[in-house]
Amino acid sequence: MEFLSVAEAARTASRHLAVLKRETKDSALNAMADALLAAEVEVLAANASDVERAEAAGTPEHMVDRLRLTPARLSGMAEGLRALARLADPVGDVVRGWTNPNGVQVRQVRVPFGVVGIIYEARPNVTADAAGICVKSGNAALLRGSSSAEASNVAIVAALRTGLSDAGVTPDAVQLLTGGREVTSEMMAARGYVDVLIPRGGAGLIESVVKHSQVPVIETGTGNCHLYVDATADADMALGILLNAKTQRPSVCNALETVLVHRSRVELLDRIVGELTAAGVTVHGDADFQAVSAEVVPAAEGEYDDEYLTLDIAARVVDSYDDAVAHIREHGTGHSETIITNDLAVADRFTREVDAAVVLVNASSRFTDGGEFGFGAEIGISTQKLHARGPMALQEMTSTKYILTGQGQTRA
Amino acid sequence: MEFLSVAEAARTASRHLAVLKRETKDSALNAMADALLAAEVEVLAANASDVERAEAAGTPEHMVDRLRLTPARLSGMAEGLRALARLADPVGDVVRGWTNPNGVQVRQVRVPFGVVGIIYEARPNVTADAAGICVKSGNAALLRGSSSAEASNVAIVAALRTGLSDAGVTPDAVQLLTGGREVTSEMMAARGYVDVLIPRGGAGLIESVVKHSQVPVIETGTGNCHLYVDATADADMALGILLNAKTQRPSVCNALETVLVHRSRVELLDRIVGELTAAGVTVHGDADFQAVSAEVVPAAEGEYDDEYLTLDIAARVVDSYDDAVAHIREHGTGHSETIITNDLAVADRFTREVDAAVVLVNASSRFTDGGEFGFGAEIGISTQKLHARGPMALQEMTSTKYILTGQGQTRA
Repeated sequence: MEFLSVAEAARTASRHLAVLKRETKDSALNAMADALLAAEVEVLAANASDVERAEAAGTPEHMVDRLRLTPARLSGMAEGLRALARLADPVGDVVRGWTNPNGVQVRQVRVPFGVVGIIYEARPNVTADAAGICVKSGNAALLRGSSSAEASNVAIVAALRTGLSDAGVTPDAVQLLTGGREVTSEMMAARGYVDVLIPRGGAGLIESVVKHSQVPVIETGTGNCHLYVDATADADMALGILLNAKTQRPSVCNALETVLVHRSRVELLDRIVGELTAAGVTVHGDADFQAVSAEVVPAAEGEYDDEYLTLDIAARVVDSYDDAVAHIREHGTGHSETIITNDLAVADRFTREVDAAVVLVNASSRFTDGGEFGFGAEIGISTQKLHARGPMALQEMTSTKYILTGQGQTRA
Repeated sequence: MEFLSVAEAARTASRHLAVLKRETKDSALNAMADALLAAEVEVLAANASDVERAEAAGTPEHMVDRLRLTPARLSGMAEGLRALARLADPVGDVVRGWTNPNGVQVRQVRVPFGVVGIIYEARPNVTADAAGICVKSGNAALLRGSSSAEASNVAIVAALRTGLSDAGVTPDAVQLLTGGREVTSEMMAARGYVDVLIPRGGAGLIESVVKHSQVPVIETGTGNCHLYVDATADADMALGILLNAKTQRPSVCNALETVLVHRSRVELLDRIVGELTAAGVTVHGDADFQAVSAEVVPAAEGEYDDEYLTLDIAARVVDSYDDAVAHIREHGTGHSETIITNDLAVADRFTREVDAAVVLVNASSRFTDGGEFGFGAEIGISTQKLHARGPMALQEMTSTKYILTGQGQTRA
């Protein structure tokens, strides 16, 4: 596959996409869903070959499971495309507008980026999801999935392209990049061809793309999320949010990894350890927590720095609000940080002093999510500060342009 | 100079700056202006040594002039800082807000980036300007000026830091990075220490930073700007805007570099060439333009791709609107693109189909400017699509965070 010819086709397609009416894009998304379901036999057969290859290579079962498609998962992908069709179109939104003193009218208007490259790991459902988000936001998609899912991705993209054609939209709006690692390198070097790169996957993948890309990257980061139980916290509220944020879905980036408790509330330690343990969570505690129960295992040095993404939690008593914030600053990844407090001044300081994509007061960090925000679709949670921070939805998949309209004005 | 210790000091300073009230930042800006004027003798002496060094090295006079400070230029720098104090503070602005169905209140609030690195070339006035913009937007500034202006920059930054201290703000809000090229490399590798890098200068500097930085970069780009005279253009309006955009200040990025004329309006060529030539502009034309006057020099192959930044202009007749847009797509740099037309449908197509930071209808491209937009301060014109596009002012020097406030809500 000649990368530059693919990129040129994407650029040309992006110009068509950029000026499509919403109704055309929505028809295309529905046609993509139809075509995906119509290709069920081909997609599942291709996926079976990927799964067979993975199993033969001794891939762990939980990773094979991520790779596996079923009729139900395929329906879910199609439904995701139809849901996108029902969402508002950000393209053309006027962000701001005013009239200059000389009468020149200025409008800042949302426009697509152009060509968006997405580099992602095993799950083949990302292929339909990312393609749909790009089409809805008027961007041409260059998809670079993992080689382990290549047969599945080829079949899925073939179906999606059929759907685009059926709706009268250029199929080059969605292209899959196959081939060896050099293709990823070419994509990361393709300034002027690719407008934005979004890596979706583990920390290693993201780190590598940030390090090597000359194309601007939106980093969707890891979440080493803290919950701080302040001196004035309501005990039931603290326990309810702690258990929800830790156990509702421990494998995701907005799940809790560390609980910090103000020293004036050590009476809560017993209950915290008891309820977490009862929920199957292993508590990795400091000396204060270890003193509470033999079930608490010692928190090793460095244990505060990493996500568990499992039913484990680090736990520490802090001497003050300032110590809690210092701990979060030292160990946090700027994803979602929570305080439980009934002290308005402390809540206010926490929301100003803690630097994270999402800062929560008396609510579960599991709310850091495009769906929960009402965005309806999400390409990831950005933990960088440029362009988008927090849940990245359709609006975050756009740039803006200024349109100036005059009647012959010149500059004095 | 140990880079990491400087960067750590900047990080600490950024935490103080992030929560300063507007009135404190404004006092600091005024104190910085006072201190700069109080240090006039030291700053001008330091500058004289830079100028002497540059002259001894045989630097061309127009570059020495950029380096040279005078009492008037120093007053201008101080006035720039006072003007920043009068501008609104973007920090704390609520961009959006809503209440989720479960009662969780969501606000998206403007916050500073944190630590901003600025890499720039000769003019020492950028030192005060960039420092002031960072302080006003609540960011700690790491300034990396050119070695040719180092003595001037050291003196200016010393004065600015005195001003910060006088106002009770940590002087580490503004730090100058001195030393060899390895310092620039360390800054570009400092992910986690520097939040954003902004190169200000020529295409070579910007290209090098984009290529080597692992820190997110905001690219302030070159402007190969076009003016297209459409079939229905008003002749006087076209000529007025053409002359203004080309000659008012030819050395800047929003100046015009190419004029395209619809074939149905070739009667205008005579007047275009005549008025441009009378204004001292050399017209580099295609065969149609060459046929008009012996004063038109042939446009060489590749001449449409580069900025002149001088009193030269490329000129071409196009057969259609589509040819004009195709030319702009092939040769433009996405800065400012202008159409002169009285056809509403054509104007509408041009604003949608031309992909540039600023698209202008019947107005001079010289309006692509933070001051003209009413922003009052500008760090550059972004030609990239991530984060900021077009004039970058105080608002564009911020990120956002989401603040979620609940009463114990958990995710079902």
